[in-house]
Amino acid sequence: MARFKMTIEYDGGPFAGWQLQADALTVQGVLENAVAVLTQGRPVVHAAGRTDAGVHATGQVAHVDIERAWDTRVLRNAINAHLRPHPVSVLAIEEVTEDFHARFSALRRHYLYRIVNRPAPLALELGKAWWHPVPLDHVAMHEAAQALLGKHDFTTFRASSCQAQSPVKTLDRFDVMRSGDAIDVVVEARSFLHHQVRSMVGSLKLVGDGKWPIEELARALHARDRTRCGPVAPPTGLYLTQVDY
Amino acid sequence: MARFKMTIEYDGGPFAGWQLQADALTVQGVLENAVAVLTQGRPVVHAAGRTDAGVHATGQVAHVDIERAWDTRVLRNAINAHLRPHPVSVLAIEEVTEDFHARFSALRRHYLYRIVNRPAPLALELGKAWWHPVPLDHVAMHEAAQALLGKHDFTTFRASSCQAQSPVKTLDRFDVMRSGDAIDVVVEARSFLHHQVRSMVGSLKLVGDGKWPIEELARALHARDRTRCGPVAPPTGLYLTQVDY
Repeated sequence: MARFKMTIEYDGGPFAGWQLQADALTVQGVLENAVAVLTQGRPVVHAAGRTDAGVHATGQVAHVDIERAWDTRVLRNAINAHLRPHPVSVLAIEEVTEDFHARFSALRRHYLYRIVNRPAPLALELGKAWWHPVPLDHVAMHEAAQALLGKHDFTTFRASSCQAQSPVKTLDRFDVMRSGDAIDVVVEARSFLHHQVRSMVGSLKLVGDGKWPIEELARALHARDRTRCGPVAPPTGLYLTQVDY
Repeated sequence: MARFKMTIEYDGGPFAGWQLQADALTVQGVLENAVAVLTQGRPVVHAAGRTDAGVHATGQVAHVDIERAWDTRVLRNAINAHLRPHPVSVLAIEEVTEDFHARFSALRRHYLYRIVNRPAPLALELGKAWWHPVPLDHVAMHEAAQALLGKHDFTTFRASSCQAQSPVKTLDRFDVMRSGDAIDVVVEARSFLHHQVRSMVGSLKLVGDGKWPIEELARALHARDRTRCGPVAPPTGLYLTQVDY
Protein backbone atom coordinates (compact mmCIF):
# COMPACT_ATOMS: atom_id res chain seq x y z
CA MET A 1 0.00 0.00 0.00
CA ALA A 2 1.09 3.55 -0.64
CA ARG A 3 -0.32 6.70 0.96
CA PHE A 4 -0.90 9.76 -1.18
CA LYS A 5 -1.50 13.35 -0.08
CA MET A 6 -3.76 15.30 -2.42
CA THR A 7 -4.25 19.08 -2.64
CA ILE A 8 -7.75 19.75 -3.91
CA GLU A 9 -9.79 22.65 -5.31
CA TYR A 10 -13.58 22.58 -5.48
CA ASP A 11 -16.65 24.68 -6.01
CA GLY A 12 -18.82 23.79 -3.02
CA GLY A 13 -22.01 24.96 -4.73
CA PRO A 14 -23.35 21.64 -6.04
CA PHE A 15 -22.30 19.60 -3.00
CA ALA A 16 -23.92 18.70 0.30
CA GLY A 17 -20.49 19.34 1.86
CA TRP A 18 -17.33 17.28 2.07
CA GLN A 19 -18.52 14.33 4.10
CA LEU A 20 -19.87 11.18 2.45
CA GLN A 21 -23.65 10.78 2.55
CA ALA A 22 -25.65 7.88 1.23
CA ASP A 23 -28.20 9.99 -0.61
CA ALA A 24 -26.49 13.27 -1.49
CA LEU A 25 -23.67 14.45 -3.74
CA THR A 26 -20.57 15.12 -1.64
CA VAL A 27 -16.96 16.01 -2.45
CA GLN A 28 -15.71 12.95 -0.57
CA GLY A 29 -18.17 10.79 -2.50
CA VAL A 30 -17.10 11.91 -5.97
CA LEU A 31 -13.42 11.68 -5.02
CA GLU A 32 -13.82 8.17 -3.63
CA ASN A 33 -15.71 7.16 -6.78
CA ALA A 34 -12.87 8.51 -8.93
CA VAL A 35 -10.17 6.74 -6.90
CA ALA A 36 -12.19 3.50 -6.77
CA VAL A 37 -11.94 3.17 -10.56
CA LEU A 38 -8.14 2.98 -10.23
CA THR A 39 -7.76 0.46 -7.42
CA GLN A 40 -9.34 -2.47 -5.62
CA GLY A 41 -12.17 -2.02 -3.14
CA ARG A 42 -13.43 1.32 -1.94
CA PRO A 43 -10.62 3.48 -0.54
CA VAL A 44 -11.57 6.10 2.03
CA VAL A 45 -10.41 9.66 1.34
CA HIS A 46 -9.66 11.53 4.59
CA ALA A 47 -9.74 15.34 4.51
CA ALA A 48 -8.07 17.98 6.67
CA GLY A 49 -11.36 19.87 6.99
CA ARG A 50 -14.87 18.50 6.50
CA THR A 51 -16.29 21.59 4.84
CA ASP A 52 -20.04 22.26 4.99
CA ALA A 53 -22.48 22.38 2.08
CA GLY A 54 -21.66 25.28 -0.23
CA VAL A 55 -18.18 25.93 1.21
CA HIS A 56 -15.37 26.06 -1.36
CA ALA A 57 -11.73 25.02 -1.30
CA THR A 58 -8.65 26.17 -3.15
CA GLY A 59 -6.30 24.14 -0.94
CA GLN A 60 -8.13 21.33 0.81
CA VAL A 61 -5.79 18.46 1.70
CA ALA A 62 -6.75 14.80 1.86
CA HIS A 63 -5.00 11.47 1.93
CA VAL A 64 -5.85 8.06 0.52
CA ASP A 65 -4.21 4.66 0.53
CA ILE A 66 -3.84 2.92 -2.81
CA GLU A 67 -2.61 -0.59 -3.43
CA ARG A 68 0.34 0.18 -5.60
CA ALA A 69 2.82 2.96 -6.13
CA TRP A 70 1.85 5.34 -8.93
CA ASP A 71 3.70 8.08 -10.67
CA THR A 72 2.05 10.99 -8.88
CA ARG A 73 1.40 13.02 -12.04
CA VAL A 74 -0.20 10.05 -13.78
CA LEU A 75 -2.32 9.39 -10.68
CA ARG A 76 -3.41 13.05 -10.46
CA ASN A 77 -4.42 13.10 -14.13
CA ALA A 78 -6.26 9.78 -13.84
CA ILE A 79 -8.25 10.89 -10.78
CA ASN A 80 -9.05 14.22 -12.46
CA ALA A 81 -10.28 12.43 -15.58
CA HIS A 82 -12.67 10.35 -13.47
CA LEU A 83 -13.84 13.43 -11.52
CA ARG A 84 -15.40 15.05 -14.59
CA PRO A 85 -17.91 16.68 -14.83
CA HIS A 86 -17.87 17.55 -11.13
CA PRO A 87 -16.18 20.86 -10.21
CA VAL A 88 -13.50 19.12 -8.13
CA SER A 89 -9.88 19.15 -9.22
CA VAL A 90 -6.80 17.52 -7.72
CA LEU A 91 -4.08 20.17 -8.02
CA ALA A 92 -1.17 18.08 -6.79
CA ILE A 93 -0.38 14.64 -5.38
CA GLU A 94 2.64 13.52 -3.44
CA GLU A 95 3.46 10.19 -1.83
CA VAL A 96 3.74 10.41 1.95
CA THR A 97 4.69 8.05 4.75
CA GLU A 98 1.96 6.06 6.48
CA ASP A 99 2.15 8.19 9.63
CA PHE A 100 0.79 11.16 7.66
CA HIS A 101 -2.89 11.85 8.34
CA ALA A 102 -4.58 14.75 6.52
CA ARG A 103 -6.75 15.58 9.51
CA PHE A 104 -4.69 14.67 12.56
CA SER A 105 -1.27 15.76 11.27
CA ALA A 106 -2.46 19.23 10.28
CA LEU A 107 -0.66 22.02 12.16
CA ARG A 108 -2.57 24.98 10.76
CA ARG A 109 -5.66 25.60 8.65
CA HIS A 110 -6.16 28.76 6.58
CA TYR A 111 -9.58 30.07 5.56
CA LEU A 112 -10.63 33.02 3.44
CA TYR A 113 -14.08 34.54 3.77
CA ARG A 114 -14.97 36.86 0.88
CA ILE A 115 -17.60 39.59 1.21
CA VAL A 116 -18.49 41.72 -1.82
CA ASN A 117 -19.57 45.10 -0.53
CA ARG A 118 -21.30 47.04 -3.30
CA PRO A 119 -24.87 48.14 -4.11
CA ALA A 120 -25.18 45.88 -7.18
CA PRO A 121 -25.98 42.18 -6.70
CA LEU A 122 -23.41 39.55 -7.66
CA ALA A 123 -23.32 38.25 -11.21
CA LEU A 124 -19.87 36.78 -11.97
CA GLU A 125 -19.23 35.91 -8.30
CA LEU A 126 -22.73 34.57 -7.62
CA GLY A 127 -22.36 31.68 -5.15
CA LYS A 128 -18.69 32.55 -4.62
CA ALA A 129 -18.98 35.40 -2.10
CA TRP A 130 -21.37 37.01 0.40
CA TRP A 131 -23.03 40.07 -1.08
CA HIS A 132 -23.54 42.95 1.29
CA PRO A 133 -25.00 46.12 -0.30
CA VAL A 134 -24.67 48.50 2.67
CA PRO A 135 -21.16 49.96 3.18
CA LEU A 136 -19.14 48.05 5.77
CA ASP A 137 -16.40 49.64 7.88
CA HIS A 138 -13.59 47.15 7.29
CA VAL A 139 -11.22 49.08 9.58
CA ALA A 140 -13.61 48.68 12.52
CA MET A 141 -14.07 45.00 11.60
CA HIS A 142 -10.32 44.43 11.61
CA GLU A 143 -9.92 46.17 14.96
CA ALA A 144 -12.72 44.13 16.52
CA ALA A 145 -11.30 40.88 15.14
CA GLN A 146 -7.94 41.36 16.87
CA ALA A 147 -9.57 40.83 20.29
CA LEU A 148 -10.30 37.21 19.33
CA LEU A 149 -6.66 36.27 18.71
CA GLY A 150 -5.10 33.80 21.10
CA LYS A 151 -6.50 30.98 23.22
CA HIS A 152 -10.16 31.32 24.17
CA ASP A 153 -13.33 29.41 24.89
CA PHE A 154 -15.18 29.94 21.58
CA THR A 155 -18.56 28.61 22.79
CA THR A 156 -20.28 31.77 21.44
CA PHE A 157 -19.04 31.00 17.92
CA ARG A 158 -19.69 27.25 17.94
CA ALA A 159 -22.59 25.47 16.25
CA SER A 160 -24.85 23.53 18.58
CA SER A 161 -24.08 20.50 16.41
CA CYS A 162 -20.31 20.81 17.08
CA GLN A 163 -18.80 17.51 18.21
CA ALA A 164 -15.43 18.83 19.43
CA GLN A 165 -14.60 17.74 22.98
CA SER A 166 -13.51 21.22 24.04
CA PRO A 167 -14.66 24.70 22.94
CA VAL A 168 -11.16 26.06 23.58
CA LYS A 169 -9.20 26.95 20.44
CA THR A 170 -6.24 29.19 19.64
CA LEU A 171 -6.80 31.74 16.88
CA ASP A 172 -3.56 32.75 15.17
CA ARG A 173 -4.81 35.23 12.56
CA PHE A 174 -8.04 37.16 11.97
CA ASP A 175 -7.39 39.90 9.42
CA VAL A 176 -9.91 42.00 7.52
CA MET A 177 -8.65 43.63 4.30
CA ARG A 178 -10.45 45.60 1.60
CA SER A 179 -9.51 45.62 -2.07
CA GLY A 180 -12.06 47.68 -4.01
CA ASP A 181 -15.48 46.11 -3.46
CA ALA A 182 -14.04 42.93 -1.96
CA ILE A 183 -13.57 42.54 1.78
CA ASP A 184 -11.40 39.51 2.50
CA VAL A 185 -11.36 38.02 5.97
CA VAL A 186 -8.35 35.74 6.51
CA VAL A 187 -8.43 33.35 9.46
CA GLU A 188 -5.81 30.87 10.65
CA ALA A 189 -5.72 28.37 13.51
CA ARG A 190 -4.55 24.84 14.20
CA SER A 191 -8.19 23.77 14.15
CA PHE A 192 -11.67 25.26 14.31
CA LEU A 193 -15.01 24.44 15.90
CA HIS A 194 -17.98 23.63 13.67
CA HIS A 195 -19.28 26.87 12.05
CA GLN A 196 -16.64 28.87 13.92
CA VAL A 197 -15.41 30.92 10.96
CA ARG A 198 -18.91 31.67 9.65
CA SER A 199 -20.11 32.51 13.19
CA MET A 200 -17.21 34.91 13.73
CA VAL A 201 -17.65 36.53 10.29
CA GLY A 202 -21.40 36.88 10.78
CA SER A 203 -20.79 38.67 14.08
CA LEU A 204 -18.01 40.78 12.58
CA LYS A 205 -20.43 41.97 9.90
CA LEU A 206 -22.55 43.53 12.68
CA VAL A 207 -19.50 45.57 13.65
CA GLY A 208 -18.96 46.53 9.99
CA ASP A 209 -22.45 47.90 9.50
CA GLY A 210 -22.48 49.70 12.86
CA LYS A 211 -25.01 47.50 14.65
CA TRP A 212 -22.34 46.46 17.16
CA PRO A 213 -19.66 48.70 18.68
CA ILE A 214 -16.12 47.41 18.14
CA GLU A 215 -15.91 46.06 21.72
CA GLU A 216 -19.08 43.98 21.34
CA LEU A 217 -17.25 41.17 19.50
CA ALA A 218 -14.94 40.60 22.49
CA ARG A 219 -17.88 40.87 24.88
CA ALA A 220 -19.76 38.22 22.92
CA LEU A 221 -16.69 35.95 23.05
CA HIS A 222 -16.26 36.34 26.79
CA ALA A 223 -19.99 35.70 27.41
CA ARG A 224 -19.42 32.11 26.17
CA ASP A 225 -23.07 32.11 25.15
CA ARG A 226 -24.25 30.92 21.73
CA THR A 227 -27.20 33.33 21.84
CA ARG A 228 -24.71 36.24 21.76
CA CYS A 229 -23.47 35.20 18.29
CA GLY A 230 -24.57 37.23 15.26
CA PRO A 231 -26.38 35.51 12.35
CA VAL A 232 -24.02 32.90 10.89
CA ALA A 233 -22.52 34.05 7.56
CA PRO A 234 -23.60 32.01 4.51
CA PRO A 235 -21.32 29.22 3.25
CA THR A 236 -20.90 30.76 -0.24
CA GLY A 237 -18.17 33.17 0.87
CA LEU A 238 -15.99 30.61 2.65
CA TYR A 239 -12.86 29.00 1.17
CA LEU A 240 -10.47 26.51 2.76
CA THR A 241 -7.27 27.85 1.19
CA GLN A 242 -4.35 26.04 2.79
CA VAL A 243 -3.40 23.39 5.33
CA ASP A 244 0.07 23.29 6.87
CA TYR A 245 1.78 20.13 8.17
CA MET B 1 -37.55 61.12 -22.24
CA ALA B 2 -34.27 60.70 -20.40
CA ARG B 3 -31.26 58.69 -21.57
CA PHE B 4 -29.40 56.54 -19.08
CA LYS B 5 -25.95 55.00 -19.40
CA MET B 6 -25.60 51.68 -17.58
CA THR B 7 -22.40 49.84 -16.61
CA ILE B 8 -23.15 46.13 -16.50
CA GLU B 9 -21.56 42.92 -15.22
CA TYR B 10 -22.69 39.48 -16.38
CA ASP B 11 -21.78 35.84 -16.42
CA GLY B 12 -22.13 34.93 -20.10
CA GLY B 13 -22.51 31.21 -19.35
CA PRO B 14 -26.30 30.85 -19.45
CA PHE B 15 -26.82 33.29 -22.33
CA ALA B 16 -26.92 32.95 -26.11
CA GLY B 17 -24.92 36.19 -26.20
CA TRP B 18 -25.87 39.83 -25.81
CA GLN B 19 -28.14 40.33 -28.78
CA LEU B 20 -31.90 39.82 -28.50
CA GLN B 21 -33.23 36.57 -30.00
CA ALA B 22 -36.82 35.48 -30.20
CA ASP B 23 -36.22 31.96 -28.89
CA ALA B 24 -33.13 32.14 -26.69
CA LEU B 25 -32.08 33.70 -23.39
CA THR B 26 -29.94 36.78 -24.06
CA VAL B 27 -28.47 39.51 -21.89
CA GLN B 28 -30.25 42.20 -23.91
CA GLY B 29 -33.50 40.29 -23.54
CA VAL B 30 -33.40 39.99 -19.74
CA LEU B 31 -32.30 43.63 -19.41
CA GLU B 32 -35.09 44.87 -21.66
CA ASN B 33 -37.58 42.76 -19.69
CA ALA B 34 -36.35 44.30 -16.45
CA VAL B 35 -36.54 47.87 -17.79
CA ALA B 36 -39.95 47.24 -19.39
CA VAL B 37 -41.48 46.67 -15.95
CA LEU B 38 -40.52 50.23 -15.00
CA THR B 39 -41.72 52.16 -18.05
CA GLN B 40 -44.18 52.22 -20.94
CA GLY B 41 -43.67 50.09 -24.02
CA ARG B 42 -40.58 48.06 -24.71
CA PRO B 43 -37.43 50.17 -24.52
CA VAL B 44 -34.42 49.02 -26.53
CA VAL B 45 -31.16 48.60 -24.63
CA HIS B 46 -28.15 49.41 -26.88
CA ALA B 47 -24.77 47.96 -25.89
CA ALA B 48 -21.20 49.06 -26.64
CA GLY B 49 -20.27 45.49 -27.59
CA ARG B 50 -22.60 42.71 -28.68
CA THR B 51 -20.77 39.91 -26.91
CA ASP B 52 -21.09 36.31 -28.16
CA ALA B 53 -22.63 33.37 -26.33
CA GLY B 54 -20.59 32.50 -23.24
CA VAL B 55 -18.60 35.77 -23.20
CA HIS B 56 -18.62 37.63 -19.88
CA ALA B 57 -18.56 41.29 -18.94
CA THR B 58 -17.33 43.22 -15.93
CA GLY B 59 -17.79 46.59 -17.63
CA GLN B 60 -20.22 46.38 -20.54
CA VAL B 61 -21.87 49.73 -21.23
CA ALA B 62 -25.36 50.20 -22.61
CA HIS B 63 -27.89 52.99 -22.88
CA VAL B 64 -31.66 53.09 -22.72
CA ASP B 65 -34.30 55.81 -23.03
CA ILE B 66 -36.91 55.93 -20.27
CA GLU B 67 -39.94 58.16 -20.16
CA ARG B 68 -39.21 60.03 -17.00
CA ALA B 69 -36.23 61.12 -14.97
CA TRP B 70 -35.31 58.74 -12.18
CA ASP B 71 -32.94 58.99 -9.31
CA THR B 72 -30.13 56.89 -10.79
CA ARG B 73 -29.57 54.81 -7.65
CA VAL B 74 -33.26 54.01 -7.34
CA LEU B 75 -33.37 53.08 -11.03
CA ARG B 76 -30.27 50.84 -10.70
CA ASN B 77 -31.76 49.03 -7.71
CA ALA B 78 -35.15 48.63 -9.43
CA ILE B 79 -33.61 47.18 -12.60
CA ASN B 80 -31.40 44.86 -10.54
CA ALA B 81 -34.41 43.63 -8.56
CA HIS B 82 -36.19 42.72 -11.81
CA LEU B 83 -33.06 41.04 -13.23
CA ARG B 84 -33.07 38.30 -10.57
CA PRO B 85 -32.34 35.40 -10.81
CA HIS B 86 -30.28 36.03 -13.95
CA PRO B 87 -26.53 36.60 -13.40
CA VAL B 88 -26.69 40.15 -14.78
CA SER B 89 -26.07 43.13 -12.54
CA VAL B 90 -26.21 46.86 -13.25
CA LEU B 91 -23.21 48.28 -11.41
CA ALA B 92 -23.90 51.96 -12.04
CA ILE B 93 -26.30 54.23 -13.90
CA GLU B 94 -25.85 57.84 -14.91
CA GLU B 95 -28.09 60.16 -16.89
CA VAL B 96 -26.52 61.26 -20.17
CA THR B 97 -27.46 63.64 -22.98
CA GLU B 98 -29.35 62.30 -25.96
CA ASP B 99 -26.30 62.49 -28.23
CA PHE B 100 -24.67 59.71 -26.17
CA HIS B 101 -24.79 56.32 -27.86
CA ALA B 102 -23.25 53.32 -26.09
CA ARG B 103 -22.06 51.79 -29.35
CA PHE B 104 -21.29 54.72 -31.63
CA SER B 105 -19.83 57.10 -29.02
CA ALA B 106 -17.35 54.54 -27.69
CA LEU B 107 -13.72 55.61 -28.10
CA ARG B 108 -12.04 52.49 -26.79
CA ARG B 109 -13.02 48.97 -25.76
CA HIS B 110 -11.01 46.89 -23.28
CA TYR B 111 -11.09 43.10 -23.20
CA LEU B 112 -9.44 40.58 -20.91
CA TYR B 113 -8.87 37.01 -22.01
CA ARG B 114 -8.00 34.67 -19.14
CA ILE B 115 -6.13 31.41 -19.66
CA VAL B 116 -5.48 29.12 -16.70
CA ASN B 117 -2.26 27.24 -17.40
CA ARG B 118 -1.92 24.31 -15.03
CA PRO B 119 -2.16 20.52 -15.25
CA ALA B 120 -5.33 20.29 -13.12
CA PRO B 121 -8.72 21.00 -14.72
CA LEU B 122 -10.73 24.03 -13.62
CA ALA B 123 -13.09 23.71 -10.68
CA LEU B 124 -13.78 27.16 -9.18
CA GLU B 125 -13.13 28.93 -12.51
CA LEU B 126 -15.03 26.42 -14.63
CA GLY B 127 -16.69 28.39 -17.45
CA LYS B 128 -14.76 31.52 -16.46
CA ALA B 129 -11.40 30.86 -18.16
CA TRP B 130 -9.73 28.75 -20.85
CA TRP B 131 -7.92 25.80 -19.32
CA HIS B 132 -4.64 24.88 -20.94
CA PRO B 133 -2.73 22.04 -19.23
CA VAL B 134 0.53 22.21 -21.24
CA PRO B 135 2.96 24.97 -20.12
CA LEU B 136 2.66 28.10 -22.26
CA ASP B 137 5.54 30.51 -22.84
CA HIS B 138 3.85 33.80 -21.95
CA VAL B 139 7.00 35.80 -22.76
CA ALA B 140 7.00 34.50 -26.35
CA MET B 141 3.24 35.18 -26.55
CA HIS B 142 3.73 38.77 -25.42
CA GLU B 143 6.54 39.33 -27.89
CA ALA B 144 4.51 37.90 -30.78
CA ALA B 145 1.49 40.01 -29.83
CA GLN B 146 3.39 43.30 -30.15
CA ALA B 147 3.64 42.84 -33.94
CA LEU B 148 -0.14 43.24 -34.20
CA LEU B 149 -0.23 46.70 -32.62
CA GLY B 150 -1.23 49.58 -34.86
CA LYS B 151 -3.41 49.85 -37.95
CA HIS B 152 -3.75 46.64 -39.99
CA ASP B 153 -6.06 44.65 -42.19
CA PHE B 154 -7.21 42.00 -39.68
CA THR B 155 -8.89 39.71 -42.25
CA THR B 156 -6.97 36.71 -40.84
CA PHE B 157 -8.53 37.24 -37.41
CA ARG B 158 -12.08 37.99 -38.57
CA ALA B 159 -15.03 35.61 -38.45
CA SER B 160 -16.57 34.82 -41.82
CA SER B 161 -19.83 36.07 -40.32
CA CYS B 162 -18.34 39.52 -39.57
CA GLN B 163 -20.52 42.35 -40.89
CA ALA B 164 -18.03 45.23 -40.52
CA GLN B 165 -17.57 47.23 -43.73
CA SER B 166 -13.79 47.21 -43.46
CA PRO B 167 -11.33 44.66 -42.01
CA VAL B 168 -8.95 47.50 -41.07
CA LYS B 169 -8.71 48.18 -37.34
CA THR B 170 -6.18 49.84 -35.05
CA LEU B 171 -4.99 47.75 -32.11
CA ASP B 172 -3.78 49.90 -29.20
CA ARG B 173 -2.79 47.26 -26.65
CA PHE B 174 -2.10 43.51 -26.75
CA ASP B 175 -0.32 42.49 -23.55
CA VAL B 176 0.27 39.00 -22.16
CA MET B 177 0.94 38.78 -18.42
CA ARG B 178 1.32 35.79 -16.10
CA SER B 179 0.35 35.74 -12.44
CA GLY B 180 0.84 32.24 -11.05
CA ASP B 181 -1.28 29.84 -13.10
CA ALA B 182 -3.26 32.66 -14.75
CA ILE B 183 -2.20 34.12 -18.08
CA ASP B 184 -4.12 37.34 -18.73
CA VAL B 185 -4.25 38.75 -22.23
CA VAL B 186 -5.32 42.41 -22.25
CA VAL B 187 -6.50 43.91 -25.54
CA GLU B 188 -7.64 47.44 -26.34
CA ALA B 189 -8.88 49.11 -29.51
CA ARG B 190 -11.50 51.60 -30.60
CA SER B 191 -13.46 48.69 -32.06
CA PHE B 192 -12.99 45.07 -33.02
CA LEU B 193 -14.08 42.73 -35.81
CA HIS B 194 -16.34 39.79 -34.98
CA HIS B 195 -14.33 37.07 -33.17
CA GLN B 196 -11.18 39.19 -33.47
CA VAL B 197 -10.00 38.85 -29.87
CA ARG B 198 -10.72 35.11 -29.71
CA SER B 199 -9.07 34.58 -33.11
CA MET B 200 -5.95 36.47 -32.04
CA VAL B 201 -5.78 34.67 -28.67
CA GLY B 202 -6.31 31.27 -30.31
CA SER B 203 -3.39 31.97 -32.66
CA LEU B 204 -1.26 33.37 -29.82
CA LYS B 205 -1.76 30.11 -27.92
CA LEU B 206 0.04 28.31 -30.78
CA VAL B 207 3.02 30.58 -30.13
CA GLY B 208 2.77 29.83 -26.40
CA ASP B 209 2.93 26.08 -26.80
CA GLY B 210 5.68 26.23 -29.43
CA LYS B 211 3.64 25.15 -32.45
CA TRP B 212 4.26 28.55 -34.08
CA PRO B 213 7.52 30.52 -33.99
CA ILE B 214 7.10 34.05 -32.61
CA GLU B 215 7.18 35.60 -36.13
CA GLU B 216 4.32 33.41 -37.36
CA LEU B 217 1.65 35.59 -35.76
CA ALA B 218 2.77 38.62 -37.82
CA ARG B 219 3.05 36.46 -40.96
CA ALA B 220 -0.51 35.21 -40.44
CA LEU B 221 -1.70 38.84 -40.06
CA HIS B 222 0.04 39.99 -43.22
CA ALA B 223 -1.31 37.03 -45.22
CA ARG B 224 -4.83 38.50 -44.77
CA ASP B 225 -6.14 34.96 -45.08
CA ARG B 226 -8.69 33.49 -42.67
CA THR B 227 -7.26 29.99 -43.18
CA ARG B 228 -4.00 31.18 -41.56
CA CYS B 229 -5.80 31.83 -38.23
CA GLY B 230 -5.29 29.39 -35.35
CA PRO B 231 -8.31 27.65 -33.76
CA VAL B 232 -10.54 30.36 -32.28
CA ALA B 233 -10.25 30.48 -28.46
CA PRO B 234 -13.41 29.50 -26.55
CA PRO B 235 -15.76 32.25 -25.30
CA THR B 236 -15.47 31.23 -21.63
CA GLY B 237 -12.17 33.10 -21.12
CA LEU B 238 -13.29 36.42 -22.61
CA TYR B 239 -14.43 39.45 -20.58
CA LEU B 240 -15.49 42.89 -21.82
CA THR B 241 -13.97 44.90 -18.98
CA GLN B 242 -14.29 48.58 -19.88
CA VAL B 243 -15.56 51.00 -22.51
CA ASP B 244 -14.18 54.53 -22.75
CA TYR B 245 -16.13 57.54 -24.11
